[in-house]
Amino acid sequence: MPENSSTKKELFRTAARLFKEKGYRATSMQDIASQLGIQKPSLYYYISSKEDLLKEIAWVTMKMLIDAIEKIAFSPLSPREKIEKIIESHVKLICENLDLFTVSLREINPINAETFWSDVVALRDRYENYVRSIIRVGKESGDFKRDMDEKLAGFALLGALNWTIRWYSPQGEKSPEEIANAWKKIFMDGFLAEKEES
Amino acid sequence: MPENSSTKKELFRTAARLFKEKGYRATSMQDIASQLGIQKPSLYYYISSKEDLLKEIAWVTMKMLIDAIEKIAFSPLSPREKIEKIIESHVKLICENLDLFTVSLREINPINAETFWSDVVALRDRYENYVRSIIRVGKESGDFKRDMDEKLAGFALLGALNWTIRWYSPQGEKSPEEIANAWKKIFMDGFLAEKEES
Repeated sequence: MPENSSTKKELFRTAARLFKEKGYRATSMQDIASQLGIQKPSLYYYISSKEDLLKEIAWVTMKMLIDAIEKIAFSPLSPREKIEKIIESHVKLICENLDLFTVSLREINPINAETFWSDVVALRDRYENYVRSIIRVGKESGDFKRDMDEKLAGFALLGALNWTIRWYSPQGEKSPEEIANAWKKIFMDGFLAEKEES
Repeated sequence: MPENSSTKKELFRTAARLFKEKGYRATSMQDIASQLGIQKPSLYYYISSKEDLLKEIAWVTMKMLIDAIEKIAFSPLSPREKIEKIIESHVKLICENLDLFTVSLREINPINAETFWSDVVALRDRYENYVRSIIRVGKESGDFKRDMDEKLAGFALLGALNWTIRWYSPQGEKSPEEIANAWKKIFMDGFLAEKEES
């Protein structure tokens, strides 16, 4: 079985689906091999251990977010447009890669600190920092409220976005575009109805 | 060791702290007994199994949220004031019971469906429904934007609130009050600066 990126991608997707459904600990390398229709030793051609596999899945997932946000952050868009684009791309990535994101966001936690802390958590921190920087620039440019705390605003936004893994279903009634559009309005304008013009 | 609620509370807090730090699966009943300074058999006076303990912890945690939201939902406050009170109480409960909430929110997921689905998930759904109903009433009363989807607005709000377990630290720079105040402003008014009066 020659190494190629589509096989590895298939391996990641299959493993992520099993980790999501059965849990990381309850899934064995044999389960993954069986699902892929290959012998267990062949798996070790691609990855060195189950832990390594989980780590690579988390890294690939965070990398998707980073690639998307770097395109947005370094574009000539306004801070407001950048945040709106981030909402769109983050929702879309989660909905289209639900197993990968569910497993990654569930497993990146202090229990796995020793395994993950260095590279995956560094990517996560980079993502958070882009969001905060864009909000800060937006405060300075007058797009956003000056008294807003960019850290707490960022946590609210990323919390809403990441929590999507807990309720989104591809069979559900809302498309990723509808979710993103609703949230762009909420985060930009809030819940309150416009006050009547005096 | 006579059964009393303070001992049981201590048992829940100790177990939650261990489940949070080591993970639910990696924590043994012996670990919990050792931390409490009691013999392992004494634990079984209070709970029948580790799974039962986790389930009770999740139930108690959801019950705190439900008790708080029912006081708010059935008060004479306006829909806007109710949502603001929910933000305050939800943030405060998470920050003051961080281990309980971290474990409960982490473990209430489809993997545990068979164990938890019936009563704990019913409480979670009830909480979500209160939030949606208050938003819906607020749309009808003119407090909130009429074109807002109450389900998606509710998910954004609960996502932000629940994600607090992933970043809040009692040693951090922000108090629960500061977090709640910042988020009340964000969810009511959004990120955008007020347009200048014409």
